[in-house]
Amino acid sequence: MNTIVYPGTFDPITNGHADLVERAAKLFDRVIVAIAASPKKKPLLALEQRVELAQQVVAHLDNVEVLGFECLLAEFVREHQASVILRGVRAVSDFEYEFQLADMNRKLVPTAETLFMTPDTNLSYISSTLIREISALNGNVEEFVHPVVNQALKTHFASKS
Amino acid sequence: MNTIVYPGTFDPITNGHADLVERAAKLFDRVIVAIAASPKKKPLLALEQRVELAQQVVAHLDNVEVLGFECLLAEFVREHQASVILRGVRAVSDFEYEFQLADMNRKLVPTAETLFMTPDTNLSYISSTLIREISALNGNVEEFVHPVVNQALKTHFASKS
Amino acid sequence: MNTIVYPGTFDPITNGHADLVERAAKLFDRVIVAIAASPKKKPLLALEQRVELAQQVVAHLDNVEVLGFECLLAEFVREHQASVILRGVRAVSDFEYEFQLADMNRKLVPTAETLFMTPDTNLSYISSTLIREISALNGNVEEFVHPVVNQALKTHFASKS
Amino acid sequence: MNTIVYPGTFDPITNGHADLVERAAKLFDRVIVAIAASPKKKPLLALEQRVELAQQVVAHLDNVEVLGFECLLAEFVREHQASVILRGVRAVSDFEYEFQLADMNRKLVPTAETLFMTPDTNLSYISSTLIREISALNGNVEEFVHPVVNQALKTHFASKS
Amino acid sequence: MNTIVYPGTFDPITNGHADLVERAAKLFDRVIVAIAASPKKKPLLALEQRVELAQQVVAHLDNVEVLGFECLLAEFVREHQASVILRGVRAVSDFEYEFQLADMNRKLVPTAETLFMTPDTNLSYISSTLIREISALNGNVEEFVHPVVNQALKTHFASKS
Amino acid sequence: MNTIVYPGTFDPITNGHADLVERAAKLFDRVIVAIAASPKKKPLLALEQRVELAQQVVAHLDNVEVLGFECLLAEFVREHQASVILRGVRAVSDFEYEFQLADMNRKLVPTAETLFMTPDTNLSYISSTLIREISALNGNVEEFVHPVVNQALKTHFASKS
Repeated sequence: MNTIVYPGTFDPITNGHADLVERAAKLFDRVIVAIAASPKKKPLLALEQRVELAQQVVAHLDNVEVLGFECLLAEFVREHQASVILRGVRAVSDFEYEFQLADMNRKLVPTAETLFMTPDTNLSYISSTLIREISALNGNVEEFVHPVVNQALKTHFASKS
Repeated sequence: MNTIVYPGTFDPITNGHADLVERAAKLFDRVIVAIAASPKKKPLLALEQRVELAQQVVAHLDNVEVLGFECLLAEFVREHQASVILRGVRAVSDFEYEFQLADMNRKLVPTAETLFMTPDTNLSYISSTLIREISALNGNVEEFVHPVVNQALKTHFASKS
Repeated sequence: MNTIVYPGTFDPITNGHADLVERAAKLFDRVIVAIAASPKKKPLLALEQRVELAQQVVAHLDNVEVLGFECLLAEFVREHQASVILRGVRAVSDFEYEFQLADMNRKLVPTAETLFMTPDTNLSYISSTLIREISALNGNVEEFVHPVVNQALKTHFASKS
Repeated sequence: MNTIVYPGTFDPITNGHADLVERAAKLFDRVIVAIAASPKKKPLLALEQRVELAQQVVAHLDNVEVLGFECLLAEFVREHQASVILRGVRAVSDFEYEFQLADMNRKLVPTAETLFMTPDTNLSYISSTLIREISALNGNVEEFVHPVVNQALKTHFASKS
Repeated sequence: MNTIVYPGTFDPITNGHADLVERAAKLFDRVIVAIAASPKKKPLLALEQRVELAQQVVAHLDNVEVLGFECLLAEFVREHQASVILRGVRAVSDFEYEFQLADMNRKLVPTAETLFMTPDTNLSYISSTLIREISALNGNVEEFVHPVVNQALKTHFASKS
Repeated sequence: MNTIVYPGTFDPITNGHADLVERAAKLFDRVIVAIAASPKKKPLLALEQRVELAQQVVAHLDNVEVLGFECLLAEFVREHQASVILRGVRAVSDFEYEFQLADMNRKLVPTAETLFMTPDTNLSYISSTLIREISALNGNVEEFVHPVVNQALKTHFASKS
């Protein structure tokens, strides 16, 4: 059985992420969406909320699980005996950092391969960063995220003002 | 009449920016230099000062206006009924983020097109980031910015030490 | 009046090209689709046929004209007193060569600016090269080109086998 | 059962390619190394010889098969009911063309996903193009290819002089 | 006599940096490893400690010196009458920023040339950023840094918990 | 004594190349401009003519020599006991191929380092390819090449028509 880990910050999960999870769920036995605490990035949403939102978004997929993690990715992968680290790449510049990371992870956990996948072109311009920026300025993001995420962002920014 | 919006943080406006505005002013009826508040980027200069400096730098161009804005760019563009968003690109890596932004803005404000323009090669290495770094270390930037900007930077850093 | 030149090999014109021409026709007074002979590239279709196909594809646009040319682009631009060279960029790597070309053209014809525009994301993966490759192997390209182009490609490859 | 197709020109198969096949063979049930005729690229070695060399190089892998093909990749993938197209990417610039190809193939064969994998850093500088160039000038490539490939290249160039 | 300056933040010095210094020491008469204070980057280790660690790592190289600096690089280069600024580039995206910097430095200190060098492929995925991230999560980095650096990182993070 | 080799096709040598040679001549004891036969690229000018033109262009530099070569670069470098291979990079995309080449050459001739240098921004858009294209269409290139090269190109294309 192939377990794959799809790691990220998911701050918040977008339609682009969801599209990738759906595609991956068809190809592999078990998919773990692994949400990094990433305190250095000072995420907008708390880890618990990011996990919860992702769980609601992928609830319809039987072989997909969402977990938060605070340790090194390599350790998480080893613990769950995953054979694949899946990374979504939207743009060429994403990819270069991803190359280094893949090389590093190959050293740290030689039993797992990193595979890259691209989102549908229709979704390729959606990034969590842009979603956060638009939301912060009261822009409408309902076309780019799941309704529960849209609601969560509205609530988040309403409480700030 | 074509109104174009040339958005950015302009922290501060450089000779590279000014060169682009001059070229654009020849091609389009009306050019709005739109200076984003961008609080997330923690700009060196206050929005008011950035607007004021830009106004002095482009004062000789009749069809150019400088405005600050704190809302979503798409909203600003719609409000001013602009048909073009002009972006300066100095480097290939700039461009990738710009691609995503252009796609996103096409969704948010379908009536405007994003156009890209490159600065003169002589000015291509000038970026606001480098200007700020050099100024902060008392380097001489008079070759890269307008005298009023040069003076503003000197005053700014003198008041810090 | 702003005349813009949109140069390329258009071997053949795709839905991506057509999308760009339509957008440009809204922004500028007069658009010239300038089809380069490009004998070095050994085009699949003869210059006359490429011009004719493009003319049929943009026939519904009043301010658009299609012309073939065999001279230097800079000369063509000067002759038609164009103030803008429009280039479509689909990908970051396209852009680098475009940067050099824009710099060179700024030297050769200082009265014209190069502007870059991106196609709709839905069309961003369509390139004349891929169209030719797919057609050559009897693949179906009707989703990516105008019916008259589709027919021309079929006829072309039928006559080869 | 997941069948994956790993397409390319393999002119000739290198240690970099072989490394990728071995990694893929661990992750998927069945791997088809699909060697494109690619007459446009004017390959050094005939399709039959490229297939034969690849077969010898991967002979030790039970779930790997080598096949030549002259049709459209999308058609080949459909015919073999593959769910994955695997592409090796060595460099960022490779990737951009790959992005377009992946998007196009998603249109042409929606039932298959394109996945990308990177070679080991030790092998990342090995490309078939460099191998051919070095061999053509009598350089030693035994460190970069399987002995049967090395021998084939020597024989090929000896017969030319 | 050619003096070269190899500037950076070295937070901390890695095996990749050390490899570059060794190569440079063979080519040039005198190599200065110039460690920037870079307060803006909020380095993990204090400037003094970064200098000290680098000194220990390159202690075996007679013509190499390690110095910290807080002024503009151009000024440092002029002061030490260096004729070369050496930059390590691991990735293409590094390079673009480096291009701008090189152009800017050519303006600021016309007597010095910027030269670029790549690390060994075996070391190309090692970056100070990744080292810091892995260390912060108790990952093992002994394969990527000198023992004294490894020890310093352990001590640093132990004192934080 | 450091001997450096600056290899290329130089078809023809441009002001950008000449600028690099001048800079290199100040930094290293001896510079060899090494002109590759490159029959695969089907150069416009014969190897002898390319060598002769380069010799005239760099005649004023005492420590610079121009040589043609038909063997593997690694072999040429070894033969001349060079310690540096100098490559000019104008653009980021150049660089990626250069990375691979540098890695490969490090394997083939471990005693030599590859160093990269950028041309002056004023010259960065000048490439031999563009020069050939412009000349072929009777464009004026006198601003971009030495008078002897300009004359040679004119003579070349006159004899073709």
